[in-house]
Amino acid sequence: MLDKVLKTIHENSMFSVNDKVIVAVSGGPDSMCLLHVLNRIKDKLNIKIIAAHVNHCLRGNESDEDEVYVKEFCSKLNIDFYSTRVDINRFSKEKGLSSEMAGRAARYEFFENIKSKVGAQKIAIAHNANDQAETILMRIMRGTGIAGIVGIKPVRDKIFVRPLIKIGREEIESYCKKEHINPRIDNTNLTNIYSRNKVRLELIPYIKRNFNEDIITTLNRLSDTVNVDNDYLEYISSQKYKLFCDEKKDEIIIHKEAFLEHKAIIARIIRKSICYLLNNTYNFEKKHILDIINLQLHKTGTNLDLPKNIKVYNNYGDISIYFKNEKIINKDNNEYELFTGKNIIQSKKIIITIKTLSKNNRVNFKENNFIKYFDYYKIKDKIILRYRKKGDKFIPIGMSGNKKLKDMFIDMKIEKSLRDKIPLICFGSEIAWIVGYRVSDKFKVDENTIKILEIKFESEANNDRRY
Amino acid sequence: MLDKVLKTIHENSMFSVNDKVIVAVSGGPDSMCLLHVLNRIKDKLNIKIIAAHVNHCLRGNESDEDEVYVKEFCSKLNIDFYSTRVDINRFSKEKGLSSEMAGRAARYEFFENIKSKVGAQKIAIAHNANDQAETILMRIMRGTGIAGIVGIKPVRDKIFVRPLIKIGREEIESYCKKEHINPRIDNTNLTNIYSRNKVRLELIPYIKRNFNEDIITTLNRLSDTVNVDNDYLEYISSQKYKLFCDEKKDEIIIHKEAFLEHKAIIARIIRKSICYLLNNTYNFEKKHILDIINLQLHKTGTNLDLPKNIKVYNNYGDISIYFKNEKIINKDNNEYELFTGKNIIQSKKIIITIKTLSKNNRVNFKENNFIKYFDYYKIKDKIILRYRKKGDKFIPIGMSGNKKLKDMFIDMKIEKSLRDKIPLICFGSEIAWIVGYRVSDKFKVDENTIKILEIKFESEANNDRRY
Repeated sequence: MLDKVLKTIHENSMFSVNDKVIVAVSGGPDSMCLLHVLNRIKDKLNIKIIAAHVNHCLRGNESDEDEVYVKEFCSKLNIDFYSTRVDINRFSKEKGLSSEMAGRAARYEFFENIKSKVGAQKIAIAHNANDQAETILMRIMRGTGIAGIVGIKPVRDKIFVRPLIKIGREEIESYCKKEHINPRIDNTNLTNIYSRNKVRLELIPYIKRNFNEDIITTLNRLSDTVNVDNDYLEYISSQKYKLFCDEKKDEIIIHKEAFLEHKAIIARIIRKSICYLLNNTYNFEKKHILDIINLQLHKTGTNLDLPKNIKVYNNYGDISIYFKNEKIINKDNNEYELFTGKNIIQSKKIIITIKTLSKNNRVNFKENNFIKYFDYYKIKDKIILRYRKKGDKFIPIGMSGNKKLKDMFIDMKIEKSLRDKIPLICFGSEIAWIVGYRVSDKFKVDENTIKILEIKFESEANNDRRY
Repeated sequence: MLDKVLKTIHENSMFSVNDKVIVAVSGGPDSMCLLHVLNRIKDKLNIKIIAAHVNHCLRGNESDEDEVYVKEFCSKLNIDFYSTRVDINRFSKEKGLSSEMAGRAARYEFFENIKSKVGAQKIAIAHNANDQAETILMRIMRGTGIAGIVGIKPVRDKIFVRPLIKIGREEIESYCKKEHINPRIDNTNLTNIYSRNKVRLELIPYIKRNFNEDIITTLNRLSDTVNVDNDYLEYISSQKYKLFCDEKKDEIIIHKEAFLEHKAIIARIIRKSICYLLNNTYNFEKKHILDIINLQLHKTGTNLDLPKNIKVYNNYGDISIYFKNEKIINKDNNEYELFTGKNIIQSKKIIITIKTLSKNNRVNFKENNFIKYFDYYKIKDKIILRYRKKGDKFIPIGMSGNKKLKDMFIDMKIEKSLRDKIPLICFGSEIAWIVGYRVSDKFKVDENTIKILEIKFESEANNDRRY
């Protein structure tokens, strides 16, 4: 076991000398094994380890006992220990996330915090070879390309390392037995019952019985092979991206020479270009990539609308992909759908600029009546600017119940003639912001916010007065 | 349906104008649909189609009725029709092949024969999108790399084309219904029950129910994506192969610069090198490829033994991979195991050269007492040269029963003093050739032989006399 783990660590250059390593520990077999193994080889590797535990508060006493168990284990082995409590049920309801996703978000946030606090370089996570096989099967069934078949990467972002990725679950369990580690068993597995557990408890045993007893190894080998190929394709396309692409503000130009490259490469260059603009390629499918390749074959001046306000323009064979962050709204029906970027409502002489920020952005929350912040994940619906309607209700910040908008206006001493002119920013049917006055409690940024939506409101009236 | 098929044909450049196309037709839904569709679009494509059917004689009357059915269908549509009868049961027993493999071998041989006979350019086969999905799943479960995940190629060797590869089984069945084609249903599916049928009838329905209703499309999309990536990797590594490799007789030199390439590329260069020597990479695993890459890091003069008589030698960083086709046998125990290539038995001053030939090699079967041909697939055991033992038996050609070797020697009027000196070529425990005199009936080349083993015997005595 130790040799196999050392091999994985070396082959993937997981640690450097003097690294401080946060070990993510739930108390279950995988993470206890990881902690125990790393503790045994830490001197050999010249690293320092620190354990971090998130108490999800999902199983009452048992969750607390998990925490105590890990804490005592660390104290016995003289390992620094940090923990936090997150009410995942509340957190997941608030965010509208599955408890799996919420747990994951809470854990990663905590580990990153401890990492900054203690000045650590790495975060070690206990994924094993079975997790890997399950992930690959799930991705194949849902639809993926070779990057997906690579599965869980041994190292991500040069920070997250997975020393147990080559070790099977059985081997981990017998290591725990042999070393007299009595890991905590979590029977209420957070994992989505309808997918990963079904893969683990039904599909893989079925494949073992009927096709290949050794399916875990086989899928891990597939991951290794595909990883090498994917790495090469990524390397080449990164080089070509640098060669052929000009990064500008909210725009990227792919020069026409790039389109002479093989389809495997130009497709990756286009994906990288979209990533440059949006940080990810969610919502972009193979079809959109092919549309861009086709556009390049058309005559100059032709263009294309893609998801997420992305526009593509053929400029004498060079392809410009840009973020259409300015939307000019001409129609005038007193209700306007708004998009990320700049929304210009000409008839009202209003500009609303919307952007997303990660929690790590240093947001200036200081009082500004015309820039407000909302919890991105609490917003489930379209963003709309409109004016008051009969029956409108609102939950002022710090309150839990609805209040009639009419009563709010009365409380705020807004004269009748002005009430119809005060813009309301709504998420779907719910008022989030009475512009210039109050924001709703429902969408407020709190300690669990991961991603923030910033909305900035400008109009000729702005500087003079409140509405 | 027609549009989808035409799209597949165009995207894969399946046909050229004036192509003669052999359509492989079993009488089942897939191939009848293929024949019907191609017949409808043949003028548009400017191709000529010819139907070819193999009667496998596996289901008595029913097999004959299949043949009649296809024949009459073709005659109604005025399509040229060729057929042949192969007793697959006998054929598979003779060859020790599964009936699936035997059927496949017989069909491909017949189609290629008709192709030469009528001067056709293409052979169209009715694989559909479900076959594709099943193949991919089977390969993933058995173990594969990205080349395997590509699955069934739309075009192979620029000869075999699969116009229905994007059409699902259900769509084919409803096409048959709509066009009043009443295909023959073969209930005794030749397919190995323990793998493909299990995938088709159990695994895919299970995935549909539990994970993805659209799994067939998803897997076909995976194949398309991976195909593009694999094509690029093959293209680059072919170019690098040409650049860095010197092809010699029974040897290939990979120059040291090749080892600076990315692992994805050097691994493919090495595979191509082995292919150059052996025509395939059967018996070579990832481990062997890594061994060669490691050898290159060692000092000059180090070497490596690989399967199939392949040797690898590090010559100042250049890697020479060669076919060790000369085996010098020094030991002298009167029983020698022989290998493909040149076997030199020094003490006896004997050279035996063994090679494999495909049936298409123009073999000169004319009487030569010292070069003999055997059916490669009838040989299940080691090839051995030895001398007579007590109790040896032999089945002379044209006979079905064993004869005592002693009686044979008497019949052939070979004097007693010579009998111990006559070499016997054996396959395992069975005598295949009394060198200089007779070959066994058991291993003879017949009309069903696909691959031939040629054994050439040379010794000082050769030219003077028989043994």
